[in-house]
Amino acid sequence: MTVAIPSPSGVSPFWSAGVADLSPYTPGEQPQIAGLIKLNTNEHPYGPSPAVLEAIRQATGDALRLYPDPDATALKQAVARRHGLDAGQVFVGNGSDEVLAHVFRALLRHGRPVLTPDIGYSFYPVYARLFDIALQPVPLRADFSVNPADYGEPNGGIVIANPNAPTGCALELAAIRALLEAHPTSVVVVDEAYVDFGAESAVSLVPVYPNLLVVQTLSKSRSLAGLRVGFAIGHPALIEGLERIKGCFNSYPLDRLAQAGAVAALEDEAWFEQTRRRVMAARSVLSQGLVDLGFEVLPSQANFVFARHPGHAGPELLAALRQRRILVRQFDKPRIADFLRITVGTPEQVSALLDALAAIVGRG
Amino acid sequence: MTVAIPSPSGVSPFWSAGVADLSPYTPGEQPQIAGLIKLNTNEHPYGPSPAVLEAIRQATGDALRLYPDPDATALKQAVARRHGLDAGQVFVGNGSDEVLAHVFRALLRHGRPVLTPDIGYSFYPVYARLFDIALQPVPLRADFSVNPADYGEPNGGIVIANPNAPTGCALELAAIRALLEAHPTSVVVVDEAYVDFGAESAVSLVPVYPNLLVVQTLSKSRSLAGLRVGFAIGHPALIEGLERIKGCFNSYPLDRLAQAGAVAALEDEAWFEQTRRRVMAARSVLSQGLVDLGFEVLPSQANFVFARHPGHAGPELLAALRQRRILVRQFDKPRIADFLRITVGTPEQVSALLDALAAIVGRG
Repeated sequence: MTVAIPSPSGVSPFWSAGVADLSPYTPGEQPQIAGLIKLNTNEHPYGPSPAVLEAIRQATGDALRLYPDPDATALKQAVARRHGLDAGQVFVGNGSDEVLAHVFRALLRHGRPVLTPDIGYSFYPVYARLFDIALQPVPLRADFSVNPADYGEPNGGIVIANPNAPTGCALELAAIRALLEAHPTSVVVVDEAYVDFGAESAVSLVPVYPNLLVVQTLSKSRSLAGLRVGFAIGHPALIEGLERIKGCFNSYPLDRLAQAGAVAALEDEAWFEQTRRRVMAARSVLSQGLVDLGFEVLPSQANFVFARHPGHAGPELLAALRQRRILVRQFDKPRIADFLRITVGTPEQVSALLDALAAIVGRG
Repeated sequence: MTVAIPSPSGVSPFWSAGVADLSPYTPGEQPQIAGLIKLNTNEHPYGPSPAVLEAIRQATGDALRLYPDPDATALKQAVARRHGLDAGQVFVGNGSDEVLAHVFRALLRHGRPVLTPDIGYSFYPVYARLFDIALQPVPLRADFSVNPADYGEPNGGIVIANPNAPTGCALELAAIRALLEAHPTSVVVVDEAYVDFGAESAVSLVPVYPNLLVVQTLSKSRSLAGLRVGFAIGHPALIEGLERIKGCFNSYPLDRLAQAGAVAALEDEAWFEQTRRRVMAARSVLSQGLVDLGFEVLPSQANFVFARHPGHAGPELLAALRQRRILVRQFDKPRIADFLRITVGTPEQVSALLDALAAIVGRG
């Protein structure tokens, strides 16, 4: 018996229709090389709360033979408590990436285009393609800000990262309110992966707007990228739509350790406050240092900055930093190809980065 | 601003087309009540290997602030090593449920019906509905065995659990080989969640049949239902199809702790052998005890048995056991409604169950 696979192009006849045309999202590199300064994936420079580590250790035992709570009830309650809401307004998933995938599938497939800024989290177009949703990019202003008035056309939903990725620019709540009121029959998704580093969360609007869904993650401000926990907050009807899709896909997306660690993370406000403030302080130093070197730096409310130098192309700077064992990220995309996205590290990492850039571009 | 949601029927206009018609899979109950004898979700009665717990503890530290390896390279290598294959023949996911979801999406959507036994894992119809795939049930024989000759019609794939769920009956390799040869242009998925309790794995056929995909899990024989790790083994072209879908859905489905624990689990063969043999020994005792009480017991190669009593309906037995604080599972479905699916527990749990049933049905 023989079957002709795969074809030279790498496409297999066993793949479902359309699979050959998909382009997966490319996550930032996770090199296993020691001694690198890793400022390329917006991880927190400080580790998770000791209470998180203790909660995980407590959950590391014989009980791992048992399935986790499929509803992650304790975690939903912890999220709800923190935000003064009800657990029925909370959906949780295996990182905010999985949450967003379910959001596209459950709430944004209406046969009308979904509007999103032309520069944003580059996973959005990937989800849209996967779920056969037309994504309509709406250009940001020249200063990379969102203009709510540009979102005029009939749509099947609006997705905005706030602060935006990879620019770091935050949108004021009034603009989000304007979008919610202008589009009462569309779900407006506000992806707040980076909100805890200085932007204003739209969670306070959830009780007012049944069409608002806010997505957050424990990967950034809670120092838990390695644990994969994200959540969404919105009207119970939106949450129920997400639960239906989740329940058709995977009953237990969050393992016992992730649930235990996430609850502990949400309960340790002191650690959260202290570590995020340190990041915000280092961000000021980083931004000023870049300006001093002649960079244009967008105003950032995230744990990264987005900056370009008038005299040096983005790919050139990326390569020169890499030679000095410093990883940052650069996107080969229109409008932003000359920018570097630099994660805010420890003060020592910020210094090392600024020293390296000074050597590359010359003191300003 | 007001929006009319949700309608009295609980359906929201914000849901994507079709969401209202979906029926999520119902996982077995995970009660938080102490003192129950829990034989309803086929968990292993013994905990994971101490090496697993140690590996998780080692990974519980500052590094949780960093993303996990999106490719789970070490885990794929551990799976490959154990089966004498290459890491390019391995796909991993957040439990075999997530793996199966990606399998349906990536490999079974061809506009032709997917064939599966009329009695099988009840998540299959849920996936099929989610991904708009027609699922064509093929009746098992009267003795609940699969007849490969019944899978004659043109199809977009074949999905079979071996041992089957919830019957526990195993299919010999010759029958799987017959299916693979009769359908060289279809992917034949063999879901081996329970294979390590006595059935013969089809993994040995992977190098021979490019249309074979074997799915396994660490939830059952590796005592790690709480950690959510599953995998698929097949030709690299099938794996690449799965990776494409995964990469469009969630870059990091396996957290750092799950990856570390899973590698350690696959490397502790002694623990695996010892604990699965204890389960198989207890299964013999359980099966014989049920026969002695007048039950009809299907031949099981899984960590559960499927049994019915000529004098008592399934729901009646389920309720009577529950009153005695023993949970088992029963499915309100044609042909099998009178059966109980009873997880093989410790010898003490088996005794307690048999004593309870003796009180309910009377000694045979």
